Amino acid sequence: MKAARIVHVKEPLQIQQLETPKPKGIEVLVRIISSGVCHSDIHLWEGGYEGIEGQFMKTTDRGVKYPLTPGHEIAGVVEATGEGVEGLSRGDRVIVYPWIGDGTCPACRAGEENLCDKPRSLGVYTEGGYAEYVLASSYKYLIKIDDKLDFDVAAILSCSALTAYTAVKNASLRPDEDVVIVGVGGLGLMAIQVIKSLTGARVIAMDIDDEKLKVAKSNGADFVINSKKDDPVKGVMELTHKLGADSVIDFVNASKTVETDMQMLRRRAKVVLVGLYGGELKLNLVSMPTRAYRLIGSYTGNLRDLAELVSLTERGVIKPIVSHKFKLEQATEALTMLKEGKITGRGVLKP
Amino acid sequence: MKAARIVHVKEPLQIQQLETPKPKGIEVLVRIISSGVCHSDIHLWEGGYEGIEGQFMKTTDRGVKYPLTPGHEIAGVVEATGEGVEGLSRGDRVIVYPWIGDGTCPACRAGEENLCDKPRSLGVYTEGGYAEYVLASSYKYLIKIDDKLDFDVAAILSCSALTAYTAVKNASLRPDEDVVIVGVGGLGLMAIQVIKSLTGARVIAMDIDDEKLKVAKSNGADFVINSKKDDPVKGVMELTHKLGADSVIDFVNASKTVETDMQMLRRRAKVVLVGLYGGELKLNLVSMPTRAYRLIGSYTGNLRDLAELVSLTERGVIKPIVSHKFKLEQATEALTMLKEGKITGRGVLKP
Amino acid sequence: MKAARIVHVKEPLQIQQLETPKPKGIEVLVRIISSGVCHSDIHLWEGGYEGIEGQFMKTTDRGVKYPLTPGHEIAGVVEATGEGVEGLSRGDRVIVYPWIGDGTCPACRAGEENLCDKPRSLGVYTEGGYAEYVLASSYKYLIKIDDKLDFDVAAILSCSALTAYTAVKNASLRPDEDVVIVGVGGLGLMAIQVIKSLTGARVIAMDIDDEKLKVAKSNGADFVINSKKDDPVKGVMELTHKLGADSVIDFVNASKTVETDMQMLRRRAKVVLVGLYGGELKLNLVSMPTRAYRLIGSYTGNLRDLAELVSLTERGVIKPIVSHKFKLEQATEALTMLKEGKITGRGVLKP
Amino acid sequence: MKAARIVHVKEPLQIQQLETPKPKGIEVLVRIISSGVCHSDIHLWEGGYEGIEGQFMKTTDRGVKYPLTPGHEIAGVVEATGEGVEGLSRGDRVIVYPWIGDGTCPACRAGEENLCDKPRSLGVYTEGGYAEYVLASSYKYLIKIDDKLDFDVAAILSCSALTAYTAVKNASLRPDEDVVIVGVGGLGLMAIQVIKSLTGARVIAMDIDDEKLKVAKSNGADFVINSKKDDPVKGVMELTHKLGADSVIDFVNASKTVETDMQMLRRRAKVVLVGLYGGELKLNLVSMPTRAYRLIGSYTGNLRDLAELVSLTERGVIKPIVSHKFKLEQATEALTMLKEGKITGRGVLKP
Repeated sequence: MKAARIVHVKEPLQIQQLETPKPKGIEVLVRIISSGVCHSDIHLWEGGYEGIEGQFMKTTDRGVKYPLTPGHEIAGVVEATGEGVEGLSRGDRVIVYPWIGDGTCPACRAGEENLCDKPRSLGVYTEGGYAEYVLASSYKYLIKIDDKLDFDVAAILSCSALTAYTAVKNASLRPDEDVVIVGVGGLGLMAIQVIKSLTGARVIAMDIDDEKLKVAKSNGADFVINSKKDDPVKGVMELTHKLGADSVIDFVNASKTVETDMQMLRRRAKVVLVGLYGGELKLNLVSMPTRAYRLIGSYTGNLRDLAELVSLTERGVIKPIVSHKFKLEQATEALTMLKEGKITGRGVLKP
Repeated sequence: MKAARIVHVKEPLQIQQLETPKPKGIEVLVRIISSGVCHSDIHLWEGGYEGIEGQFMKTTDRGVKYPLTPGHEIAGVVEATGEGVEGLSRGDRVIVYPWIGDGTCPACRAGEENLCDKPRSLGVYTEGGYAEYVLASSYKYLIKIDDKLDFDVAAILSCSALTAYTAVKNASLRPDEDVVIVGVGGLGLMAIQVIKSLTGARVIAMDIDDEKLKVAKSNGADFVINSKKDDPVKGVMELTHKLGADSVIDFVNASKTVETDMQMLRRRAKVVLVGLYGGELKLNLVSMPTRAYRLIGSYTGNLRDLAELVSLTERGVIKPIVSHKFKLEQATEALTMLKEGKITGRGVLKP
Repeated sequence: MKAARIVHVKEPLQIQQLETPKPKGIEVLVRIISSGVCHSDIHLWEGGYEGIEGQFMKTTDRGVKYPLTPGHEIAGVVEATGEGVEGLSRGDRVIVYPWIGDGTCPACRAGEENLCDKPRSLGVYTEGGYAEYVLASSYKYLIKIDDKLDFDVAAILSCSALTAYTAVKNASLRPDEDVVIVGVGGLGLMAIQVIKSLTGARVIAMDIDDEKLKVAKSNGADFVINSKKDDPVKGVMELTHKLGADSVIDFVNASKTVETDMQMLRRRAKVVLVGLYGGELKLNLVSMPTRAYRLIGSYTGNLRDLAELVSLTERGVIKPIVSHKFKLEQATEALTMLKEGKITGRGVLKP
Repeated sequence: MKAARIVHVKEPLQIQQLETPKPKGIEVLVRIISSGVCHSDIHLWEGGYEGIEGQFMKTTDRGVKYPLTPGHEIAGVVEATGEGVEGLSRGDRVIVYPWIGDGTCPACRAGEENLCDKPRSLGVYTEGGYAEYVLASSYKYLIKIDDKLDFDVAAILSCSALTAYTAVKNASLRPDEDVVIVGVGGLGLMAIQVIKSLTGARVIAMDIDDEKLKVAKSNGADFVINSKKDDPVKGVMELTHKLGADSVIDFVNASKTVETDMQMLRRRAKVVLVGLYGGELKLNLVSMPTRAYRLIGSYTGNLRDLAELVSLTERGVIKPIVSHKFKLEQATEALTMLKEGKITGRGVLKP
């Protein structure tokens, strides 16, 4: 099978010919129809993240090994099944839950494999979806989808939508609250849709790109602020009767955005940090107890929630937006466009 | 009535003669028998907190006005009641819930007055307990106590114990988890007792004073680490099979302690910040989502929880430790001793 | 002031002239513009509820005293304020939270006054809203409303909408779940709106009146079943792939409806019992643990949630339906029509 | 291998010679050292449960097939592992989580396999622990135990202790609450220990056997009531200032006990139904909403909680009580003694 792989960090991905896996036991081989291109793939490609004090945090220090086939947003059809597989057969339309854990840590035992102590996520620690086929280690990680659900839309549920969904859950919004969404890319848009469909809260969308804010508005944002043109803190304070926002969900999570976030908070506010841009924040420690703030790191989501998203999407309650399609051979081009902010919504590879 | 008041910040408290309030409507006048001396009173006395980049955050910017009678840990007997008071009469033994809100913000309406948008806490924003009498604005803020419950012990429930209790609740400990308690003063000791009585978790107590660690051990800590003598990060990692602590509750909350806290965390860990020492933390932003950390500011506690603490104390499940007693005239001395770390447990004034 | 009062149970209400109360302390006098007519008022009027084994449970045994001015859904304007009232002045548009408790029981302390051990609800235990004025015992029980919010719509938030809202919360619906709504009167309709706006779940509406089911459908119900014409159990099983419903919210709560409810449940299902029709259920005890069912009694709602409903209504997320308006003098007529099932939506008195 | 099997309901179990399974893939073969004898095994043996209106609910209608090797409380050592097994090797001491689900229903995906739509629990739907060996379908269902933890004590964690633990969690006890434990057998005793170690609540233990109540007292019950000799309702009302119990956990769950339970409840009370005795309750429907009661069926527990129990037991926080040991050949005798109420604590088979 063909796969687009990161062989050396920062160099173009290589199309390699790999042996197609054969499923045994409870394993399932999935033929990939659509495979989402995610911002976190850029970090795998670049080999790391920005840390504190100018340090670079290497992916290899987190256990990533190269060459690697990235790709964790995978939709396709069952190609073959191990002899222990139940409830699935060749030809079934499925999405693949990629945030696989070791199955025995406390998080895994509670159904939170995405937060496993020793993760083995597809496309991060094991071979992922920038390929013609992927091997799922258990049929339990596959979710069947409706005949009517588009594979491209289905693909991006397992990270773009799921991460946004979990981030919104972590904000525990109440219907009379104000939430600021920082960064209106694929995840930010999804978060806006989820908030408007499931919480009743008011959304203030924030970005530096008017085009994206326009899309935010049409996806349900109650207010938008271009933080490049207007003072974001002043803007939020005016919209919240000088009280501040009840929650901020930051899909950028860079020094500059979070520093601003901290100035627009109501007492008891939650700041949900999702993006992987990184850098450091000078956190005012005494304000944490006196203002009763919460900073919540939010990472992907669990299998149970992914099933909920499938249901919501099948019924049209939420409408994930796929805006760009690429061939497998264009993987490098897709990552480059995403990095340069040229993708509104989400891009997918079509192996 | 006599009151020990902060007239000018950083100067000795003055004993002043004030008019004894007369309760109207649903108000209650309480004759104070015991009034706890709290670390946060030192900040009122000094006029502020340490912020980021060397800034000093003034209490007057938070709405505090001087002269002020501090004191928010109050136990005594009902002296007089307004005509609308129900269920209480002269002579009843009570403690006073001091974390009063405006009654109409979202937090107040949910029974979380301690987190009110516009707080009016006793001894912070209004006249407090370093006095012979205190006026409670409603009988609803008083909790009756058993005849057998010592007034000194009762007094320190409403902040020392309540703040520790809420901090422990905010850590949502599970019985197979490891929690680090940073700072074993009055609150740290109380937290250890609460954890051992109500959660089943393992406690690692951390301090720089061997004497305090000895008391921690006798109050139930499973392990102790003197972070001055031994490497605290290495110590915690060894005790947790290299995984890190599930939670850290930091009763100091200074730059140095929190910086250390962040290095001893298991994935999914919570850091509960309670102390008011202050300063800044250089927070590694990308580690928040990837490690799924939570930083939780924890501020005092609510009335419902205080009632639970009264019940636990009356039945001997927890045993708050009052170690020093002072006359009202010794208020300055009491604050000085506390500041210098000379009080293990908790001190009270006896007006 | 005029009031429509129940002087003798089962007899027509009498219009009586009462002294208009004068607010003291933190009390507020509200001039009533609109006052909802609720199904529970019928039970006050009839003097009781149907119990088990044919017994009649008298309201007087629950502490209700006659003559009584019923009415607990009240909207109006502030007429006068006691000297301790904050944040409100004459002319302010408000709704009145009626589910008042004693303020000191565990439920009250947690902000759940509607579940107080010793309730003193307006229009049940104290003089209510079938009158020109009502006295609120504290300004904290009033919620200001927008100039644009219709008084009639506002009135019915505090019970019709709030009870439905809390019932939905008690079902803890997840987005891929199926919920059955039994009884599509004012509360059932409100519940359907809340579920569709805030949970993403699928709604199966059930009633014996095709007209009401039509309205249910136009308010968002995904499916409707006329349980008089069609087999409701079979209908639900077919719609749920033979698994059964995840939740049933029963706004009738009569022997017959609940008996049927229990046959259409998925393992782990919740049955939320709201209506006051009463009677008895022969509950199969062993099925409770083996099927992991939950039966949840749901009674009105709390002040915090009412504030959320005001926000949702002001922004048009939900649209409570007032269908009938009456003069105060028509109180008996209004109750009679409601009892006879002639009111779809909700009726209000206009004193 | 030898197994004690139910070949025909109500007849003595037969010792049969079965082929010892060979583990493949991620399966593990466990050599059984200790296997608990549970009250629910009696129902498998008798072929059913008591339903409503005198009906008998057959186990075969729930999917149970005979001949069956019962036994779901299993401790032993790893004998052999499939080639895909991780983290376990021959000789490891383990307990087996028996409440296995299909792995794909909503409950399974949330880590609640014990509440699966299509359960395949060991010793109920598949071959269980009354045998020399048992096959676990995945290494994920095994929990390693300390060298110091007794196998007999370990065995009874997976049902006796786990069911009690989950039941206590379902009661969501707060420290100032009163809980009644109905039935002080193995589960009741465990519940008392858990409540006293982890909640701070007051326990009123209720049984008809003074000997058992004596053991309840020594295990931490604050009060005991012999409901045969004394009026249980009156007793509870006196101990709760006429308010009633905040929760009742009924480990019998028979018509008679639950009827009594319903008369001793505080407003907002929870009744947790655990036992499988069965029969019917005439439930007063109107009291459900007006009193805000909750009836909660509680069935075994999840894998995450079992790991917590192992930790609590290894550290001596709880001390499960094994009182009787039998040979595999004595299985019928063990079940008979249990049925006749002759076992205080718990019995185990030693294959």
